[in-house]
Amino acid sequence: MTLSLPDALPGDPRFFDRQGPFSIDALAACAEAEIVGQEGAGEITLRGVAPLQAATSQEISFLDNRRYLPLLAETKAGAVILGPAFKDKLPPGVIGLVSKAPYLAWARIAAQFHPVTPSRPSVHPTALVDETARLGEGVEIGPFVTIGANAEIGADSVIAAHAAIGDGVVIGAHNRIGAHVSLSHAILGDRVTLYPGARIGQDGFGFAVGPAGFETVPQLGRVVLGHDVEIGANSTIDRGSMRDTIIGAGTRIDNLVQIGHNAQLGRCCIVVSQAGISGSTELGDFVTIAAQAGLIGHIKIGDKARVGAQCGVMSDVEAGADVIGSPAMPFREFFRNVAFLRRLAKKDGKSEA
Amino acid sequence: MTLSLPDALPGDPRFFDRQGPFSIDALAACAEAEIVGQEGAGEITLRGVAPLQAATSQEISFLDNRRYLPLLAETKAGAVILGPAFKDKLPPGVIGLVSKAPYLAWARIAAQFHPVTPSRPSVHPTALVDETARLGEGVEIGPFVTIGANAEIGADSVIAAHAAIGDGVVIGAHNRIGAHVSLSHAILGDRVTLYPGARIGQDGFGFAVGPAGFETVPQLGRVVLGHDVEIGANSTIDRGSMRDTIIGAGTRIDNLVQIGHNAQLGRCCIVVSQAGISGSTELGDFVTIAAQAGLIGHIKIGDKARVGAQCGVMSDVEAGADVIGSPAMPFREFFRNVAFLRRLAKKDGKSEA
Amino acid sequence: MTLSLPDALPGDPRFFDRQGPFSIDALAACAEAEIVGQEGAGEITLRGVAPLQAATSQEISFLDNRRYLPLLAETKAGAVILGPAFKDKLPPGVIGLVSKAPYLAWARIAAQFHPVTPSRPSVHPTALVDETARLGEGVEIGPFVTIGANAEIGADSVIAAHAAIGDGVVIGAHNRIGAHVSLSHAILGDRVTLYPGARIGQDGFGFAVGPAGFETVPQLGRVVLGHDVEIGANSTIDRGSMRDTIIGAGTRIDNLVQIGHNAQLGRCCIVVSQAGISGSTELGDFVTIAAQAGLIGHIKIGDKARVGAQCGVMSDVEAGADVIGSPAMPFREFFRNVAFLRRLAKKDGKSEA
Repeated sequence: MTLSLPDALPGDPRFFDRQGPFSIDALAACAEAEIVGQEGAGEITLRGVAPLQAATSQEISFLDNRRYLPLLAETKAGAVILGPAFKDKLPPGVIGLVSKAPYLAWARIAAQFHPVTPSRPSVHPTALVDETARLGEGVEIGPFVTIGANAEIGADSVIAAHAAIGDGVVIGAHNRIGAHVSLSHAILGDRVTLYPGARIGQDGFGFAVGPAGFETVPQLGRVVLGHDVEIGANSTIDRGSMRDTIIGAGTRIDNLVQIGHNAQLGRCCIVVSQAGISGSTELGDFVTIAAQAGLIGHIKIGDKARVGAQCGVMSDVEAGADVIGSPAMPFREFFRNVAFLRRLAKKDGKSEA
Repeated sequence: MTLSLPDALPGDPRFFDRQGPFSIDALAACAEAEIVGQEGAGEITLRGVAPLQAATSQEISFLDNRRYLPLLAETKAGAVILGPAFKDKLPPGVIGLVSKAPYLAWARIAAQFHPVTPSRPSVHPTALVDETARLGEGVEIGPFVTIGANAEIGADSVIAAHAAIGDGVVIGAHNRIGAHVSLSHAILGDRVTLYPGARIGQDGFGFAVGPAGFETVPQLGRVVLGHDVEIGANSTIDRGSMRDTIIGAGTRIDNLVQIGHNAQLGRCCIVVSQAGISGSTELGDFVTIAAQAGLIGHIKIGDKARVGAQCGVMSDVEAGADVIGSPAMPFREFFRNVAFLRRLAKKDGKSEA
Repeated sequence: MTLSLPDALPGDPRFFDRQGPFSIDALAACAEAEIVGQEGAGEITLRGVAPLQAATSQEISFLDNRRYLPLLAETKAGAVILGPAFKDKLPPGVIGLVSKAPYLAWARIAAQFHPVTPSRPSVHPTALVDETARLGEGVEIGPFVTIGANAEIGADSVIAAHAAIGDGVVIGAHNRIGAHVSLSHAILGDRVTLYPGARIGQDGFGFAVGPAGFETVPQLGRVVLGHDVEIGANSTIDRGSMRDTIIGAGTRIDNLVQIGHNAQLGRCCIVVSQAGISGSTELGDFVTIAAQAGLIGHIKIGDKARVGAQCGVMSDVEAGADVIGSPAMPFREFFRNVAFLRRLAKKDGKSEA
């Protein structure tokens, strides 16, 4: 084994299956892109994806940032996905797949070559599936998985090694439950993905002060994950106390994120790694919470609001607002304050010198 | 399966056992509350708990915040737990359980209806229990659990699926060790709860700079968790290097918290999610560390001090102090500085405009 | 079991094997230290390590900080490791092991008495090792481990209970893979240590905005961990999208750290707990990232730069620089600003009073 920096193309065959070849016509169709190039270009077939500097005439590549134009000029790629603004920069002989959403086109074409591995319908002989659990068609249950009484696993879902699915849990169709996930008191929609080590449905952090110490307040709600939700590795979502903790359809949560009990996130939110959302806080739709931001409990964040990295949010945020800082304030104000303080302190330092 | 927002009462029977019914007399007794209502109210029986807006005459509900008074006025609940200040607001026919500590009363009554599931004494046939390990009476060992040589598990403790208990680990009575926990080099008191994925007892982050890179410093201490300690999901507590890492009795630690080697926490501290306590730092009793706060190593935090969310603590904090900001300062000063800077920068912006 | 604070020496025999006794000559040799004391001191044998205040004449202790000189004066230790500056402070009868790098000397001597337990070559009967996987000599595979097709495990590596090793993963020699680790799409050097619950190789957080919600961008790279890398408990390292996520040789990463896709860390970096490094960011060699710091994506941090705790880094950092604050600025400037604002706001408060 060598650890010299690897020049392997993306899609190392040890780790990734590869489909194809595909014609440029087929790729353009799935990406809804326009073909630019010599006549008959659509019939040429390609075998894979690669970055501009590594691609050969057998591969398709991708450009979405002006600063990589020098790489485009020298690329040996058979075809390149790019936006309309760059199509004049294609070197001779390189076919263009022009899209107004080149990154989306890239996602779709790369997924043609490297689709998600379908479920391999089976229950591993070491898995412990309660006899009252119901498994849909095409379900794949990995080794050492435990599935509790009355749990339901929807069609074509994959439960990876060592996952622990509690009693009564409902999992929709086409879910991907990662290795070592623990999942209890929860109801999941379709096409939900939980990455390894995610902890879903444990007790929220609730207790009252009693005469001899803290006394636990029973946490009687659930976790509800909408369709197409993704939860990152080692993230934690506590179940509700009196109502449910709800993650709306299409929302994506990164690694090591904490979601407190009773929190309610809308549709298509993005929560980046190590952010934390405290109990009973509500997010609208299309909200973005950047990395390491923290939201206190019992506040509301409006639709399409954006909370910056490391932001500390102590009160409601209006729809569409951009906030950053701790405590949170509008982006513009935060950076004005930073610059102002810097300038003033520097002047002060000089006057004292 | 529907994902329309669930109107299930708390305590979804798929996930929660329910005891009862209980008479109001019995509930008032366990909560040390006073019954307010018509004659014979104490003999009425109730079947469960529910929020004010969902409760029927069969359920008991709860009010502890003035802003929910409109819900109280319209509630159909059979009884409501509330503080003395609100007892005049009870609608006709609704029985009051009046307590000076209504949240504690609520905790106890909810726990009457939904007690923690007792251990089901058994060792799952897939569990691997070393022949030298000692199991107390009533212990429940889940599937795929591993228990090392000379480990001790106290009476009535429950070890959930996939937990890995290392050689020599001592676990007291009535513990709840969650799924996928790893536990080594540790001694636990009674009634300790570890949530799923907690990592207790691994090596601290200790190394010396050698001529060819870092060299590991052996971590020769342990982790000691006092009685009634709770550790949240995916939190990490490293064992000590030369002394022990100690968490005092009654302390509750939330999810994704990091506790470094040799740290010593007193009794009944609260450490909220994603906070971090660096090596060799000491907390007194009743200290609160809010979410995402960070404490450097080798400092002391006095009894009852409160460290705010995202606070960065670089030096000792006196008993009873309230600090916030990074670097930490008194609450009052922090918010004065924030307001002052905001005002000054705004004025500056205007004068330049 | 008692929870009275433990006075056990470090190295509680329930948890730690002990080698020895060793002669002071042998200890001095492994630590490259000079013996100071009576004639024949080198032939005296010692049985273990202990702190100054607990050591007996059978143990060796350690001093590296002036503030512990009072403990040195009263120690009953047989020998003490210390720097040249303190050797005149040795009490009569206590042998000195004098080293210019006393902490390194300590690391080596403690490791003599308490070496890492060697692998116990074996494959646990419950482990599931794919028939195409290749195991080197002396490999130890724990209970409930899963090892995928075509995986390679180098000589003398130890895979602890419940670890899940994916298809094609390459693990070098003398690795220590902790309990509950999940590892996929990854290539590891020699002497790599992964602590319990680390998540290595899952998909990065990559998606494009489509007409009906987010669409996943296939993550086609790998994770490459160089020789001697350590990754802390519950930390997460996503695999690359088009290139690899790379951690350079000798780098040590603490608990609950997030490393995004395509990030590249150089040699002998230190990343302290709860820090986060976003996608495509590059660190040089010998970089230190303190606890809870966050780095945005696509930036470069120069060799030997130091990023302070809770720092928020939004742009490149020069080699050798010390930065702190959010946004990041030079240490000196950050603390000047803090002091300046504090002073100004206090004055303002008084003038208004």
